[in-house]
Amino acid sequence: MNNLQEKLVDWRRDFHQYPETGFLEMRTASIVASILDGLGYHLQMGKEVMSEQDCMGKPSEEETSSHYEWAKENGANSEFLSHFSEGYTGIVATLDSGKEGPVIAYRVDMDALDILESDALEHFPQKEGFASKITGKMHACGHDSHTAMGLGLATLLAENKAELKGKVKLIFQPAEEGTRGAKSMVAANVVNDVDYFIAIHIGVGVPHKQFVAANSGFLATSKLDISFRGTASHAGGKPEEGRNALSAAATSVLSLHGIPRHSHGATRVNVGQLEAGSGRNIIADRAKMKIETRGETSSINDYVKGQVESIISGAATMYQVDYNIETVGEGLSCKCSLDLAEVLHQCATSSSEFEKSVLEDNTPAGSEDATYFMEAVQKNGGQATYCVFGTELAAGHHNERFDINEESLLPAVKVLYDTAQKLMEK
Amino acid sequence: MNNLQEKLVDWRRDFHQYPETGFLEMRTASIVASILDGLGYHLQMGKEVMSEQDCMGKPSEEETSSHYEWAKENGANSEFLSHFSEGYTGIVATLDSGKEGPVIAYRVDMDALDILESDALEHFPQKEGFASKITGKMHACGHDSHTAMGLGLATLLAENKAELKGKVKLIFQPAEEGTRGAKSMVAANVVNDVDYFIAIHIGVGVPHKQFVAANSGFLATSKLDISFRGTASHAGGKPEEGRNALSAAATSVLSLHGIPRHSHGATRVNVGQLEAGSGRNIIADRAKMKIETRGETSSINDYVKGQVESIISGAATMYQVDYNIETVGEGLSCKCSLDLAEVLHQCATSSSEFEKSVLEDNTPAGSEDATYFMEAVQKNGGQATYCVFGTELAAGHHNERFDINEESLLPAVKVLYDTAQKLMEK
Amino acid sequence: MNNLQEKLVDWRRDFHQYPETGFLEMRTASIVASILDGLGYHLQMGKEVMSEQDCMGKPSEEETSSHYEWAKENGANSEFLSHFSEGYTGIVATLDSGKEGPVIAYRVDMDALDILESDALEHFPQKEGFASKITGKMHACGHDSHTAMGLGLATLLAENKAELKGKVKLIFQPAEEGTRGAKSMVAANVVNDVDYFIAIHIGVGVPHKQFVAANSGFLATSKLDISFRGTASHAGGKPEEGRNALSAAATSVLSLHGIPRHSHGATRVNVGQLEAGSGRNIIADRAKMKIETRGETSSINDYVKGQVESIISGAATMYQVDYNIETVGEGLSCKCSLDLAEVLHQCATSSSEFEKSVLEDNTPAGSEDATYFMEAVQKNGGQATYCVFGTELAAGHHNERFDINEESLLPAVKVLYDTAQKLMEK
Amino acid sequence: MNNLQEKLVDWRRDFHQYPETGFLEMRTASIVASILDGLGYHLQMGKEVMSEQDCMGKPSEEETSSHYEWAKENGANSEFLSHFSEGYTGIVATLDSGKEGPVIAYRVDMDALDILESDALEHFPQKEGFASKITGKMHACGHDSHTAMGLGLATLLAENKAELKGKVKLIFQPAEEGTRGAKSMVAANVVNDVDYFIAIHIGVGVPHKQFVAANSGFLATSKLDISFRGTASHAGGKPEEGRNALSAAATSVLSLHGIPRHSHGATRVNVGQLEAGSGRNIIADRAKMKIETRGETSSINDYVKGQVESIISGAATMYQVDYNIETVGEGLSCKCSLDLAEVLHQCATSSSEFEKSVLEDNTPAGSEDATYFMEAVQKNGGQATYCVFGTELAAGHHNERFDINEESLLPAVKVLYDTAQKLMEK
Repeated sequence: MNNLQEKLVDWRRDFHQYPETGFLEMRTASIVASILDGLGYHLQMGKEVMSEQDCMGKPSEEETSSHYEWAKENGANSEFLSHFSEGYTGIVATLDSGKEGPVIAYRVDMDALDILESDALEHFPQKEGFASKITGKMHACGHDSHTAMGLGLATLLAENKAELKGKVKLIFQPAEEGTRGAKSMVAANVVNDVDYFIAIHIGVGVPHKQFVAANSGFLATSKLDISFRGTASHAGGKPEEGRNALSAAATSVLSLHGIPRHSHGATRVNVGQLEAGSGRNIIADRAKMKIETRGETSSINDYVKGQVESIISGAATMYQVDYNIETVGEGLSCKCSLDLAEVLHQCATSSSEFEKSVLEDNTPAGSEDATYFMEAVQKNGGQATYCVFGTELAAGHHNERFDINEESLLPAVKVLYDTAQKLMEK
Repeated sequence: MNNLQEKLVDWRRDFHQYPETGFLEMRTASIVASILDGLGYHLQMGKEVMSEQDCMGKPSEEETSSHYEWAKENGANSEFLSHFSEGYTGIVATLDSGKEGPVIAYRVDMDALDILESDALEHFPQKEGFASKITGKMHACGHDSHTAMGLGLATLLAENKAELKGKVKLIFQPAEEGTRGAKSMVAANVVNDVDYFIAIHIGVGVPHKQFVAANSGFLATSKLDISFRGTASHAGGKPEEGRNALSAAATSVLSLHGIPRHSHGATRVNVGQLEAGSGRNIIADRAKMKIETRGETSSINDYVKGQVESIISGAATMYQVDYNIETVGEGLSCKCSLDLAEVLHQCATSSSEFEKSVLEDNTPAGSEDATYFMEAVQKNGGQATYCVFGTELAAGHHNERFDINEESLLPAVKVLYDTAQKLMEK
Repeated sequence: MNNLQEKLVDWRRDFHQYPETGFLEMRTASIVASILDGLGYHLQMGKEVMSEQDCMGKPSEEETSSHYEWAKENGANSEFLSHFSEGYTGIVATLDSGKEGPVIAYRVDMDALDILESDALEHFPQKEGFASKITGKMHACGHDSHTAMGLGLATLLAENKAELKGKVKLIFQPAEEGTRGAKSMVAANVVNDVDYFIAIHIGVGVPHKQFVAANSGFLATSKLDISFRGTASHAGGKPEEGRNALSAAATSVLSLHGIPRHSHGATRVNVGQLEAGSGRNIIADRAKMKIETRGETSSINDYVKGQVESIISGAATMYQVDYNIETVGEGLSCKCSLDLAEVLHQCATSSSEFEKSVLEDNTPAGSEDATYFMEAVQKNGGQATYCVFGTELAAGHHNERFDINEESLLPAVKVLYDTAQKLMEK
Repeated sequence: MNNLQEKLVDWRRDFHQYPETGFLEMRTASIVASILDGLGYHLQMGKEVMSEQDCMGKPSEEETSSHYEWAKENGANSEFLSHFSEGYTGIVATLDSGKEGPVIAYRVDMDALDILESDALEHFPQKEGFASKITGKMHACGHDSHTAMGLGLATLLAENKAELKGKVKLIFQPAEEGTRGAKSMVAANVVNDVDYFIAIHIGVGVPHKQFVAANSGFLATSKLDISFRGTASHAGGKPEEGRNALSAAATSVLSLHGIPRHSHGATRVNVGQLEAGSGRNIIADRAKMKIETRGETSSINDYVKGQVESIISGAATMYQVDYNIETVGEGLSCKCSLDLAEVLHQCATSSSEFEKSVLEDNTPAGSEDATYFMEAVQKNGGQATYCVFGTELAAGHHNERFDINEESLLPAVKVLYDTAQKLMEK
């Protein structure tokens, strides 16, 4: 087991040095695939496990192929890299016990963030020499650890294959940031046969040596890129000939922030970015906005998104401009299956490594696209939960000094393994 | 002639005491008709000279019939009143010389304003005992004088019928205020046969004993009543169920005032009144706005009006409410026929009563719907002008202390008469 | 007791016929005072129990004195009416047992609403001949019943005075609608000596024969009247001279509705009414808005109100106009004292008249200014709760067909009386 | 003279290849200075002729010093370059005849635009091999020609020095684009002693072989960079902690476009660019806008600018953010001195090279900061005009295919020279 702890740290630090953002996790995926292949898993990769049309907010072809070249030269596994060349970087690895039993799925995510990692000497990854080697990208949310934990769990399962029943599916998902990747894997039917689904996260406010077996507080969300296209004209010479995209955007902003609250639960709307116009004395013919909606439930978020659509369409009419709304990310709300969570809860409670385990936490939190898997599994009659392993955080998620306590990794992997065993015995 | 001056004053003071607003000039019209009939004019009245569907901003049937009852009891001429009972209060009075010659038309307007006349003792109509007898209504623009001048001109023409050639048509127009009445008389073809058209105004900044033969500076205008209709809901309990008409109106206001300027000339937009909502804690389901557009030319005003329509339609879409735009008044820009103006200019210059005559003034001024007559006459190959007779004003037009110098009346009538004679000799 | 039921119905129907809105409950208060006086209560009235400067949204002096004349002629008690002539219509009636013991306060409200009562024949008050005699005013929230219940409780207490300990204070509050009256009674120190405080309501969704002992879900709220004052000018002639109050209001509306949500709980903002401007072609120099804020806690509501103030002040600066914000109503959030609620709950549970009793309900509901009393009592170390007696409603509160089941009255009074007894025994 | 035409073309083409934008005309100025020095002019350069604090929209020190290095390596005159190293690139070159007589000033501008020159083969500068060598910068307004004309005039004057009286001052101004440079030269008193001031432009719609001696139609203008600075917060997690700079900007946009028209003349306002925010789910803490105001007169523009200031200040208050308004360019309106224009008009009329000369054109046009010189000279009792030499344009000003007919250059220089002679004889 000490050996496994070392592996977990090695994997995590390797991924940390080569952070890859959503739909570009080519190096990461190639290494993951190679390891899983070595462990004897059956692999499905790329478009086999991702529906092209359901990928949201995928980078341009240009950026994708340029990153592919980068991956080649930065330690990607050459045997598996080509499966991910177009940016469909998901993997489903199946271990079939050959015996009757349930299908148990675990989901981990692999993507990093567009954040410049701190160069402070006291920042642990700097001190230990495994800080990001890509300027402006960083594993600042812990997905490097999640991927390592997925590999650790894969190792334990493979080593104990003889004891298993049913099947285990390990899902390595791209592009969780921005809630962009899960939907396409669900649309590719990767959880259609799943009886138990477990998604994991490290940190998010849960203290070291503590555990939450069911985190149901996710807000449903939509990430929308909105553009207006009008007509430029000289603002001094021909003001009447312009069709002002900037005015359409400004009008939208005020109405978007004023979308009425919903009596059934919390809502959020934010226009986070706005760029418009080309010159001081030109009527602006282009405007772009990045916005985000949230709702305490999926249906509340749908209400907000519907209002957004009316507002954008109407603002375009007001200023006689064209518009486009692109959904570049989306997440649902969820309700964890408490029967399944109970099993995790028992395993954590039994573990000497954990001081406290909580069955369920409903505090409103951020958003997650693991909710797509959960909804699909539950609709099929399966059970699904989202659990959180506590750790010490050097700084909050998405902070340039984010770091975890690596001693949290192995105990978490063991709980996940124990849970699989218990579920197989049911 | 002294006799005529007395009559002018009597008529003017009578009308001043009984001010009737647009499409309600029933008492006024009945008296005008009776006098013209006595002078031997051929009369066309009511719907004969007004197209129903082109009347803009006409009062409700209720208000119209209630005013009809009032007129009966307040000195209307009982022989002619019934012609005007539905509020079509226009008159065209024709004097046919029986000889060949041109058709010359003069247009005067008859309506008053919703203004409370001053009760100051030094206010001349108070001092002389002819102030308004209707609280809240007042001849504060001089149309009482215009109507009197029309009758004075009718008298001179009738007295000198033997000397005339061609025909003279005297047009007594309702509802000039708000630019509402002229269009319907034009649509009823009352100027189709007209060779020379002269509209008149008193005052408007021209000093006593001065004259402007061609006033071309009118701004085209549209008066629009706009309403939004949404859905009420309890703002605390069910905010998501409301469809907010007040927000649609507020959004419109900002965009309306921001309609881009036009490089070809001046524009104006004003939301003068806004009323919305029914209670503090209710999402507002109704909003009404009174707005006005103007343009240095009719086509510039059309541009502004077109922008208004886009804005209102778009704002309704934004807030998922219904809307209605009603045109309750409209006026065009004009270019006076200088050949015709020259004749007036000569008559004024020759008159010992005038100290100064100006051929043309293009200063941007208010708006006027005499422009509909002018456009129609000029399109048919005729000539048209709008002239102004100076006077001393006690206070500006539309002021509660507005008053004129009554000695301006007779000289003006004579210039108009002399002009007719000159035109017949051409 | 049957006798008391008859009295309750008589009182309630009398008040129902003479609905008086906030700070005008002169007839009602005079009758209440007279009855309480007859029962031997010590009375404090008018400004003795209301701080002038803390009355919010009080009607004008004109309206107040006019209503006073009306009350004189419509059955007010002439002995007591004069205490309420200025619209300070509150009463605190004290029954002192002379024995040591707790001070127990009950609060009922007396005001009606500006609602036109239904004239449908099947509407019970119509059928029974006790519908509102004042067109446009109606007891559509049940305060007529509350006042009757207060008198019923007063009767029971007085009849059993020998058995009592400590003191009972009955608070008859004006102007609960719009959350306007309570604050001024608290500021007059009427609950400074209170150990137990109980406010009551009938209906609000609780079924007949059911009871809720602690209703903690009130939203804090502020009712604000906002006005802008600018400068009028002719929109066509001198647009640059106007200072547009309507534009300031429209700009405010959009920002007010866009006040950011609060992560600690629900918020609400509504601009329910907006009136601005004086004429289509005049730059609007005046605008008025009626707005309402709410927050899940008082501090959240304070946050929203603070944002409102910034927005209004800034919008005035933008358009160079003056502004005024008047607070015309305000309510707090509350947390009921469960120890006290437990006593009520036991009394209801013991009563054969009730089928179900709930200790506490936290569902977000409307707003209430009884919360001012509750906060004051709790700050002084006392206990406070807000309880609800179920009934059958013919239609929702504030509906023109609102009506209750009068059989709910006596059981409610008995629970209140029993609770007093239990509290005195503690 | 043929020789001079060749020089004019050589100079113009050299400057065309090395276009330098405002306050970076270091290479250009160094070459100009060297030539003028060779011709015997007395030179004042850099801060001698430019008030530091009155430079508007000057590039950063970094950009300035980087461009200085570029100039060194791209043909700048090493003797004079150092005078311009800090970006104060103005030159005043004086030729003193030693005889009594008037002080006559000519102003030319030297700066280029941030425009990518067309690479079409039929574009004359491409065909002839003198297209811009700096990607993204181009002489697309003709200032390369103006500078050449200034040097041509300098040559003629120097060659004929013996015949001159009084003094001639040649002003080579930086940063006319964006109306940024003139004010600082006026503030450095360079025209304090000037009796006659002549600014020139080529093209702007005047046909080849035609001339306009007085162009009075410039609009006064202000170029403003506006920024808002608020507080970022997580839009989902802590919406109430943000202070939204993007909302402040959006609110401003709508009000800025709605600044009321002015009855004394045309106005313009344009928000040409807006950039705000840092991420989709972050409350935006920064926003920047590039805006422009114009007015038919300087005082109308001042009115608009005043309104802008109120709006920005108020919007900042509304959203509790800070703001900054920086004036990065400004121009005045002007009224040319017709006596001076008459002299130019006569010289053009006498020239066989011109087919038509117009004394004055008042058509509203763009904006110009030569108006600062004009105002200063006229205030001191001198005369000033702005004249336009027609040419054939390949495409409009500021177009990527802009080009002139080089045969226009020499005739223009001669008219300017002849005018100097005439003025000296007065």
